Amino acid sequence: MNLLITAPDPALTPALQHKIDRKTKPLGALGRLEALALQIGLVQQTLTPELRQPHIVVFAGDHGAARAGVSAYPQDVTWQMVENFLAGGAAINVFGRQMGLGLTVVDAGVNHDFGKRSGLMDAKIAPGTANYIEQAAMSAEQRDAALQRGREIAHALAGNGCNCMCVGEMGIGNTASASLLTNCLVGAEQGADLYTVTGRGTGLDDAGLAHKRALLKQALQRTGGPRDALTVLAEYGGFEIAMMVGAMLGAAEKRMLVLIDGFIVSAALLVAHAINPAVLPYCVFAHRSQEPGHRVQMAYLGVEPLMELDLRLGEGTGAALAFPLVQAATNFLNEMASFESAGVSAKS
Amino acid sequence: MNLLITAPDPALTPALQHKIDRKTKPLGALGRLEALALQIGLVQQTLTPELRQPHIVVFAGDHGAARAGVSAYPQDVTWQMVENFLAGGAAINVFGRQMGLGLTVVDAGVNHDFGKRSGLMDAKIAPGTANYIEQAAMSAEQRDAALQRGREIAHALAGNGCNCMCVGEMGIGNTASASLLTNCLVGAEQGADLYTVTGRGTGLDDAGLAHKRALLKQALQRTGGPRDALTVLAEYGGFEIAMMVGAMLGAAEKRMLVLIDGFIVSAALLVAHAINPAVLPYCVFAHRSQEPGHRVQMAYLGVEPLMELDLRLGEGTGAALAFPLVQAATNFLNEMASFESAGVSAKS
Repeated sequence: MNLLITAPDPALTPALQHKIDRKTKPLGALGRLEALALQIGLVQQTLTPELRQPHIVVFAGDHGAARAGVSAYPQDVTWQMVENFLAGGAAINVFGRQMGLGLTVVDAGVNHDFGKRSGLMDAKIAPGTANYIEQAAMSAEQRDAALQRGREIAHALAGNGCNCMCVGEMGIGNTASASLLTNCLVGAEQGADLYTVTGRGTGLDDAGLAHKRALLKQALQRTGGPRDALTVLAEYGGFEIAMMVGAMLGAAEKRMLVLIDGFIVSAALLVAHAINPAVLPYCVFAHRSQEPGHRVQMAYLGVEPLMELDLRLGEGTGAALAFPLVQAATNFLNEMASFESAGVSAKS
Repeated sequence: MNLLITAPDPALTPALQHKIDRKTKPLGALGRLEALALQIGLVQQTLTPELRQPHIVVFAGDHGAARAGVSAYPQDVTWQMVENFLAGGAAINVFGRQMGLGLTVVDAGVNHDFGKRSGLMDAKIAPGTANYIEQAAMSAEQRDAALQRGREIAHALAGNGCNCMCVGEMGIGNTASASLLTNCLVGAEQGADLYTVTGRGTGLDDAGLAHKRALLKQALQRTGGPRDALTVLAEYGGFEIAMMVGAMLGAAEKRMLVLIDGFIVSAALLVAHAINPAVLPYCVFAHRSQEPGHRVQMAYLGVEPLMELDLRLGEGTGAALAFPLVQAATNFLNEMASFESAGVSAKS
């Protein structure tokens, strides 16, 4: 991919900060919303940012390793949950409706034939990845196709007037994939040893967690643990993860704000960040997941999520729940009176 | 006051928990939203709770001690900010509009003559409290009138169909009052020594903070630090704080959900809780304020706020920002499909 991503020009910072500081509130009293307003203003390069057509994209894919026992749920749950999304009954549907967000579900590589369905984008690379315990999860061609398709999805959203994308995912087994990606890309020397970044996912018990760790160790021993992001993605990624990487990069190209959900979406961001670190200033970190590796990812990227609600559901639910805070940051910047306009006295 | 508050009957807990657990998500995967859904179901005594006519009430009052120098801002800012609320230009207006919340501003005791104004409820006890460094902030009669008026305000909201009240405040000098209340009611032995629970408020510098601490020490020495809640309230309270106490108690009588904002609202809750601890299960704690005493209050009450955004603005802004999470908890309980209804497989 020949990416055209540049970090936002910081020249507008003083003017944005001045506008924030003159609002009728003590200096800094809106805390993290003030930093968020500044970020959004810089991303959009304006003193009056607007969130237009905010949209959730849920990327779904299956993992060959799921059949080896890395998850508490059977692989069929991936397609069953996609059906649940299409029927409007999943958590992401509920929260997306509440927050006024559009929703697109993308079949990036689910092991199921959905046929042509309203609300489902068919971007299937293959019906699930190969089992990375035995071989690379995907070929270089499949990886590149997924990246390109994700990028196109983001560009198409931008073409429809969307400037704020919430990223979510569904794929039985994908916390395992995210653990491997995190281990390879962050490295044990920065806290991402495989043991630490491998968690219970959808709810493994102690024995299940030990089994998952043993399988992932085996998967890692197969390759020796590459560090190159594109290699890591092909070895251990999922199609939904690769497509999220492409979507994040494509969104940054179009200067969209990207709401990052939890552990798996953040693993995709680690790949995107390794490909082009200028993607980072376009990202808002919605919440800290209960999955232990998420803390390691956030520390590595040097970012602090907005909320900590002990969520571990995925689907983009954390991103959807954080959306009102992002909207609030934009709204106070546009709608609050200043000390001058309201005739309120300044500090003694 | 002859209060009629009883804690919610816990008999519905197993049925609510079962409903939460059968939703299409791993057990517990919605984290704190699940506990919130359970709480709301118990408060409303139903498996299908609804937030009806959610409303913010901002109680405003002036403090005699403000003129002695406990705040970074002049006392006039209280009435000027009330004007800002009425004009729709303050942070609480912006966030209230965004979240679809009604807003009532209550003049509990502002040192200003507003005349009759649309959107402003005249409940003025007196034009500001006395300076508690020299004498009790209010008489027992004033305190009781404020409590009673607050209770009536909550009852009137309930009468209009509201079952969810967000509590906010405005009053230059009221973090100082909240510090004294917290010190007296929690006690130094539980971490609420005056030094720890006295913070910068709207933004005092080091010298201003030292001055504020010295003044509050003087105010405390005058009485020796009573522990009886009603005495403490009269000695150091504000009219807006006393009226919030009454409103919280009145809301709990009507089994309304009460969204608690930051440090000052929580100081009022300490008083309400001392009067009747059964108020607590009706309260949702919106956010942890940057004001250092707020952490001490939350630990004393044994509660954990939903968000931590480094806010220190008051007005009810934290409560308004947390409202979408409360709504989300209600919505997932009502709208999400179950494993059975969606045909999704359970754990392997």
